[in-house]
Amino acid sequence: MQNDDVLKILESYKQGSFSLEEAEQKVHSSYFSDLGHTMVDNNRRKRSGASEVIYCAGKTEEQIAHIFAEMNKRGDNILGTRASHEAYQAVKKIIPSAEYDVPGRTITLINRDTPLTETSIAIVSAGTSDLPVAREACVTAEFYGNRVQLISDVGVAGIHRLFNHIEEIRKARVVIVIAGMEGALPSVVGGLVDKPVIAVPTSVGYGAAFGGLAALLGMLNSCSSGISVVNIDNGFGAAFQASMINHL
Amino acid sequence: MQNDDVLKILESYKQGSFSLEEAEQKVHSSYFSDLGHTMVDNNRRKRSGASEVIYCAGKTEEQIAHIFAEMNKRGDNILGTRASHEAYQAVKKIIPSAEYDVPGRTITLINRDTPLTETSIAIVSAGTSDLPVAREACVTAEFYGNRVQLISDVGVAGIHRLFNHIEEIRKARVVIVIAGMEGALPSVVGGLVDKPVIAVPTSVGYGAAFGGLAALLGMLNSCSSGISVVNIDNGFGAAFQASMINHL
Amino acid sequence: MQNDDVLKILESYKQGSFSLEEAEQKVHSSYFSDLGHTMVDNNRRKRSGASEVIYCAGKTEEQIAHIFAEMNKRGDNILGTRASHEAYQAVKKIIPSAEYDVPGRTITLINRDTPLTETSIAIVSAGTSDLPVAREACVTAEFYGNRVQLISDVGVAGIHRLFNHIEEIRKARVVIVIAGMEGALPSVVGGLVDKPVIAVPTSVGYGAAFGGLAALLGMLNSCSSGISVVNIDNGFGAAFQASMINHL
Amino acid sequence: MQNDDVLKILESYKQGSFSLEEAEQKVHSSYFSDLGHTMVDNNRRKRSGASEVIYCAGKTEEQIAHIFAEMNKRGDNILGTRASHEAYQAVKKIIPSAEYDVPGRTITLINRDTPLTETSIAIVSAGTSDLPVAREACVTAEFYGNRVQLISDVGVAGIHRLFNHIEEIRKARVVIVIAGMEGALPSVVGGLVDKPVIAVPTSVGYGAAFGGLAALLGMLNSCSSGISVVNIDNGFGAAFQASMINHL
Amino acid sequence: MQNDDVLKILESYKQGSFSLEEAEQKVHSSYFSDLGHTMVDNNRRKRSGASEVIYCAGKTEEQIAHIFAEMNKRGDNILGTRASHEAYQAVKKIIPSAEYDVPGRTITLINRDTPLTETSIAIVSAGTSDLPVAREACVTAEFYGNRVQLISDVGVAGIHRLFNHIEEIRKARVVIVIAGMEGALPSVVGGLVDKPVIAVPTSVGYGAAFGGLAALLGMLNSCSSGISVVNIDNGFGAAFQASMINHL
Amino acid sequence: MQNDDVLKILESYKQGSFSLEEAEQKVHSSYFSDLGHTMVDNNRRKRSGASEVIYCAGKTEEQIAHIFAEMNKRGDNILGTRASHEAYQAVKKIIPSAEYDVPGRTITLINRDTPLTETSIAIVSAGTSDLPVAREACVTAEFYGNRVQLISDVGVAGIHRLFNHIEEIRKARVVIVIAGMEGALPSVVGGLVDKPVIAVPTSVGYGAAFGGLAALLGMLNSCSSGISVVNIDNGFGAAFQASMINHL
Amino acid sequence: MQNDDVLKILESYKQGSFSLEEAEQKVHSSYFSDLGHTMVDNNRRKRSGASEVIYCAGKTEEQIAHIFAEMNKRGDNILGTRASHEAYQAVKKIIPSAEYDVPGRTITLINRDTPLTETSIAIVSAGTSDLPVAREACVTAEFYGNRVQLISDVGVAGIHRLFNHIEEIRKARVVIVIAGMEGALPSVVGGLVDKPVIAVPTSVGYGAAFGGLAALLGMLNSCSSGISVVNIDNGFGAAFQASMINHL
Amino acid sequence: MQNDDVLKILESYKQGSFSLEEAEQKVHSSYFSDLGHTMVDNNRRKRSGASEVIYCAGKTEEQIAHIFAEMNKRGDNILGTRASHEAYQAVKKIIPSAEYDVPGRTITLINRDTPLTETSIAIVSAGTSDLPVAREACVTAEFYGNRVQLISDVGVAGIHRLFNHIEEIRKARVVIVIAGMEGALPSVVGGLVDKPVIAVPTSVGYGAAFGGLAALLGMLNSCSSGISVVNIDNGFGAAFQASMINHL
Repeated sequence: MQNDDVLKILESYKQGSFSLEEAEQKVHSSYFSDLGHTMVDNNRRKRSGASEVIYCAGKTEEQIAHIFAEMNKRGDNILGTRASHEAYQAVKKIIPSAEYDVPGRTITLINRDTPLTETSIAIVSAGTSDLPVAREACVTAEFYGNRVQLISDVGVAGIHRLFNHIEEIRKARVVIVIAGMEGALPSVVGGLVDKPVIAVPTSVGYGAAFGGLAALLGMLNSCSSGISVVNIDNGFGAAFQASMINHL
Repeated sequence: MQNDDVLKILESYKQGSFSLEEAEQKVHSSYFSDLGHTMVDNNRRKRSGASEVIYCAGKTEEQIAHIFAEMNKRGDNILGTRASHEAYQAVKKIIPSAEYDVPGRTITLINRDTPLTETSIAIVSAGTSDLPVAREACVTAEFYGNRVQLISDVGVAGIHRLFNHIEEIRKARVVIVIAGMEGALPSVVGGLVDKPVIAVPTSVGYGAAFGGLAALLGMLNSCSSGISVVNIDNGFGAAFQASMINHL
Repeated sequence: MQNDDVLKILESYKQGSFSLEEAEQKVHSSYFSDLGHTMVDNNRRKRSGASEVIYCAGKTEEQIAHIFAEMNKRGDNILGTRASHEAYQAVKKIIPSAEYDVPGRTITLINRDTPLTETSIAIVSAGTSDLPVAREACVTAEFYGNRVQLISDVGVAGIHRLFNHIEEIRKARVVIVIAGMEGALPSVVGGLVDKPVIAVPTSVGYGAAFGGLAALLGMLNSCSSGISVVNIDNGFGAAFQASMINHL
Repeated sequence: MQNDDVLKILESYKQGSFSLEEAEQKVHSSYFSDLGHTMVDNNRRKRSGASEVIYCAGKTEEQIAHIFAEMNKRGDNILGTRASHEAYQAVKKIIPSAEYDVPGRTITLINRDTPLTETSIAIVSAGTSDLPVAREACVTAEFYGNRVQLISDVGVAGIHRLFNHIEEIRKARVVIVIAGMEGALPSVVGGLVDKPVIAVPTSVGYGAAFGGLAALLGMLNSCSSGISVVNIDNGFGAAFQASMINHL
Repeated sequence: MQNDDVLKILESYKQGSFSLEEAEQKVHSSYFSDLGHTMVDNNRRKRSGASEVIYCAGKTEEQIAHIFAEMNKRGDNILGTRASHEAYQAVKKIIPSAEYDVPGRTITLINRDTPLTETSIAIVSAGTSDLPVAREACVTAEFYGNRVQLISDVGVAGIHRLFNHIEEIRKARVVIVIAGMEGALPSVVGGLVDKPVIAVPTSVGYGAAFGGLAALLGMLNSCSSGISVVNIDNGFGAAFQASMINHL
Repeated sequence: MQNDDVLKILESYKQGSFSLEEAEQKVHSSYFSDLGHTMVDNNRRKRSGASEVIYCAGKTEEQIAHIFAEMNKRGDNILGTRASHEAYQAVKKIIPSAEYDVPGRTITLINRDTPLTETSIAIVSAGTSDLPVAREACVTAEFYGNRVQLISDVGVAGIHRLFNHIEEIRKARVVIVIAGMEGALPSVVGGLVDKPVIAVPTSVGYGAAFGGLAALLGMLNSCSSGISVVNIDNGFGAAFQASMINHL
Repeated sequence: MQNDDVLKILESYKQGSFSLEEAEQKVHSSYFSDLGHTMVDNNRRKRSGASEVIYCAGKTEEQIAHIFAEMNKRGDNILGTRASHEAYQAVKKIIPSAEYDVPGRTITLINRDTPLTETSIAIVSAGTSDLPVAREACVTAEFYGNRVQLISDVGVAGIHRLFNHIEEIRKARVVIVIAGMEGALPSVVGGLVDKPVIAVPTSVGYGAAFGGLAALLGMLNSCSSGISVVNIDNGFGAAFQASMINHL
Repeated sequence: MQNDDVLKILESYKQGSFSLEEAEQKVHSSYFSDLGHTMVDNNRRKRSGASEVIYCAGKTEEQIAHIFAEMNKRGDNILGTRASHEAYQAVKKIIPSAEYDVPGRTITLINRDTPLTETSIAIVSAGTSDLPVAREACVTAEFYGNRVQLISDVGVAGIHRLFNHIEEIRKARVVIVIAGMEGALPSVVGGLVDKPVIAVPTSVGYGAAFGGLAALLGMLNSCSSGISVVNIDNGFGAAFQASMINHL
């Protein structure tokens, strides 16, 4: 990983354009700003195909619309998560090509095509109430150029529904499993497929579900191997990691 | 439900054996002690077939042996739960016919036969580490005269093992399902059988299992209907209720 | 349990209707779809008498009305739980015979009669604030064809009120006990009756009640035997299991 | 509340024994040390009849014996709580009149008699496992000169046992109720007696008892009025407050 | 405690008014209804001076007004706690003499005078935000006929404010101490006064105050003796017990 | 620390202006009120430069405006925290020079200048969502006369952004680090700077962030030395202590 | 996926070897046992290269030695986790080629070679106390044939140590990050590398670390994308999933 | 901050000692290793006066002795915390000048003098059981060259004891306050002194103290300003930060 700025400084210095101390100072500055570009920003760009993600919760509609407008100028693809429909309408007024996923609460803006992966991510969700999280995962995975199979409503209380889809799930390269309440689905899927499973607990449930805590603990304690877990309702995070794995 | 003591008091009083005030006092005493016999103790006898249960944890070997000796004189059947092997040996020295279940940590003493039920209780456990709880449930259910089917090591991570036994489980009148870690097994069983399921979380697991809390929450939030839950590791309690149901 | 589809495939195959490979494939397909029908769906139908339950919380009024309309076409009995009055009005507009229980927040639609049980379920609740959960349990139990005795406002702080009803409670085949705050009622009832008790903690209380957690823990740790517990406020779940037991 | 030291300083100052500045300084010192004597220490002496309490947990046998020896010189009555039998033996070697309560784990040393109260404290405990806490309360209450009625093993699962003792309990001036597991007993007692009830949760139980948390929450959420709660296993604290109330 | 109903039955029976069996039955009925009157209701009347308390939270304005109207007919004194101003207005429309305490959120209706105690209850609160709980305690204590001293805004961060009132507090027979946040005030007061202290944690605070949990735990673990604790924000409960103690 | 009031009393007493008993009484009164002035109030004044802080949450707009008006008369500087914009407008109507910080939700009123410190406080925040807490800290620190450097949006996920500012942070005398979610930033900063770090967890996050608990625990367990923590979202508290340190 | 057993049954049936009913029964049996083989066991074999894993915690030395002996006969590779040194010695007596990793507490037995992956797994751990978990992960990953880079003691308090290894870490295909205390390391690593990160919280720490809970919550709430989490101290689970990803 | 290595590289490069690419590579390497030295290690040295701290918990006696021996060679001052007496003896055998603090469980080795601060740190602890934490803080503060005042056993239950020492405490530059149980002491001290207070919760207490959680929450919610908190029992951490502040 060659640092072009330093190369230029070294050449100019040899040519006498600046003193030893000046050169040292310039190298220093270069390194500190370079640290960012090399280590982080370039990575992000490579990783996400020049895409940006905006977590919209807690931002006003005007702020969201403004951020989209700014990023749109750079020609980036943009994904807004946890976005209200009102936020979408504010964005759409400025950028008519922006799209909204109602259950997933995402705003998507595609300025350049991302090449589609050969292999796919399976997104498996337990109940209809888990759909918002499943859709967030789905939109995210597609945003990063992944083929996606969404298999809904295959909770463990009616396990035959899962079996009807098991061959389909097995074809995926990585599997996201989404469930609320007792969060048992990832354990069952993890025992049936031979692929990494990323489990997403949801806040679906009441009483002793404690806002997703029961499902979270269930998934962390899964008796199946090959399962890891993300935060409650974090469909985005699961899809982001699944995309990373699917692009390996 | 006639109170014979009160009948006798009334008759004696009419015959002048004691004054009005004495009669009132005797009725009063009779009622208060009667309350106990009528409401509670007789029930327990009916319910459990003249059997007594001793929770041995926190008692010394001498105390346990002493209690067994006393009860043995009445000819009761006696079940000691959470008993160490040392406690058993102290009992056995006095009552050689007492028996011990090593994994279940129970001492059993049978003085009179309990008629065996026609129908059975299925006890289904997830992993080999859940065996102590499963055995406690097993011994308890048999102590109260129930036929029992014990099906071990059918955790959800290898769900085909459960299917190999599903017909057997379905023949039971009531099902006890025992699991630690994420506690998902009752949800799966509850979706496959048409009988009441009593779920027992166990303290098996580590880290975020928090001593059985994860399994407990999982079971309370089960997406399957027809499931109720007892305390962590409470194999006795599950079997006691299952026996009640099986005797209906 | 004979699989008629497989029998037909076997016969046709013997008659040469399709090749060995085709036969194997058909058997395979049959088994996988069969798995569901045999194991789960038929069970559910048997179990619930062609009845369907809709958990209405988190669904829009339109969605609920739509689901009721669809199910109504099949002539099923339908129970909607956690339904707002608005949801009921949306359903009623389409199906005028639907009924609503105000405290229990249930919508009921009866298309065919369910035979009534000989034996009954007693539903015992501690305070007037527990009524919504008690009514949900009540409506659910009746929906599945059970005789029901509802005994309200017999909390442990005035234990004589419970005693006035104890004979009534003892006549039931299974008892549901509902309480918030400290959740002590199931322990007292469990000590007085000789029947399985299903305890329902409610979210009634404030401060250190922590939304029903205090009552839930109290019930799980009951010193009375023969008690099991369902999730906080889960009147439906308790009644569903009680109905199973009452139908044994 | 006249401060004699200040009076003396004022007089001496007027007589010219010291300068204005010295007088101010002496008043200042007097007030600060006085603050302690007036506010705290004298109170404690009045309150406890020249008695001292040592919390022995976490102290070595030598330390405990040493503290007893020092206090013994002042002729105080001394109560040691949470003391091991070994600690007692170390004390006894030095002060042969010291006494030990085995279940309560207390060391008592009486150097002067405390007058006995006319009225009594009732100490009511749920199960035999709660005995250590009940005995600690008992010894403490007697140490401070209270008549005490100890009524054990009257848990709510067999409520008739409580009724057999209810008249006795009602005669007390203040009632301590001790229970582990679900901690329901104070609610029942509180509904039956017309006296202040101090509830003590114990760490008796297992699984979701969480070391007494279930009982603690149950008691804090009691549906009976007139109940307050002390820390888990805090028999001493309950008896100390009960003694205060009984001495009013 | 003589049972007049039983005396009459005994006399009538001796006079031949009914048969032995009838007599036994009547005694039985008498005892069961008597149980309630003797044990509970009469107590409550004695205890509270023919007063009734309504917990208004979770009841509609109409329900509250209705209950007040019914109780008013019996001439009882009535206290409504956790009542909104709207509820008060609904009551006032029917019973113009009803009064409302704005910070305490209580409705009071006095139909007959309660004799005032000689001794008093001190109610000490830490901050201005604890005033609602302090006022609830205040109104409750006065409702039951207690003299009350309310000392507000004497939190431990400015401990001199407490000292300015310490003599006043010491004159009370029992002290209620109310605090949110870290809940330290009862420990300090408990160290300075020689009277029973009832501590009330409040839900005042934010972040790691966890709705009063921090104050609750602080109070339960107080290093001062003579302190007991009621539920978070339970000003009523503290005052009810304090009134009991003050009436001893 | 000489007590002038006592000096005067002593002199007057010597001159015979009042009796011994009167003198003792006056000294007593002086000491108790003095206690406050000496110990607390004067301290506060010294400490904060005649400034007052009002925690506005839970107060009505009228109450807040009233308090500001009263304090304004004394010529104090006033800081209102957790104030709504409506509260500000109510204040502004009365005191037009009052200023409002929108993200920080603070009202500031400066009546006299506070000398500015030579050294500065660095306020470092992880994400844009932490800005409200950062602004509250910022306004508070400036209110007490500190130079402040605010460095936002330098979360650990893009650690180069922190490095771009590290020299700036190192120049501060004390550092406040604000972060939600996993709360990792203080650990990283603490490892890079040689100054005391005060960490502020924020309630930013969702799911298992549990309202700031995750960040709070993270900070308390920091593997870097030299870090202490304040309550969740407590920007004011952090700045208050930082100001104390910066003024040493 | 052709089922050979069914093919044989079909052929035999056509040849008249058994009746229609017998054929149906055999197909049925085949399917149910087949379910296991096809779905689960074969998968496991494929996935793990004929390897078996034994969780040794809670098993006696004899049991562990026995299981190793049995599995050894089949020629499998065997990994024992959470094994004491005593357990290892019991195994070694029977199978001298078994090896033990002291910090990782693993017993490894290699009977046939597993091909080594081209790409590697980086295992990054924060402190020396996290070594046991890191070693468990390391041994597990190597057991499944992965190249492994172990980089220890690069906690965030001294972030330059991490930077010295960052190029090395970036070369891996998947990264396991292990940390106790505040668990901040995965966030920092996740921001610097472009690969999936599996985070393992450890129980290292004290006080408010709550046995790894602080680290667990920190990791679940990471502000870096691309991170998922396994149970506390679950080095095995992290390595198992990492191996799956590395083998894709 | 000039980077001498880079200066040398630049000079050598200009003199033609290596090519442009080599120079760029050397600059790069220099920067990455330099990052550590500049940013972290030098800081630590400056900060702690060439001192090293070893957290001994979880290390064997041999490991601890070995680390001491290695560090001793560099002539560093060394502090071992959470060290058993056995560990000390192992160290002492090698380095006879090492010293041990019994209650604080620290090993100290002084190789060169640290200049003593003019100003002091006050360490104030509530009860005798908090002494181990107070001693750890004390030894740590002295290790870093601070004057220290240790004031023990001044808990809030006997607040006059604190007042006897308040002038002494006020003279310190920074105050550490240590308390278990309800953790109220920092609030009281914070209200009386005008200096930064670092609060240390201890695990002293039982029952609902939950291992120091009650004290921790109490301190985080302190109603006094100017207080920050470290982890439970973290005497070292408090003293480390106090030393930083005292050296400002």
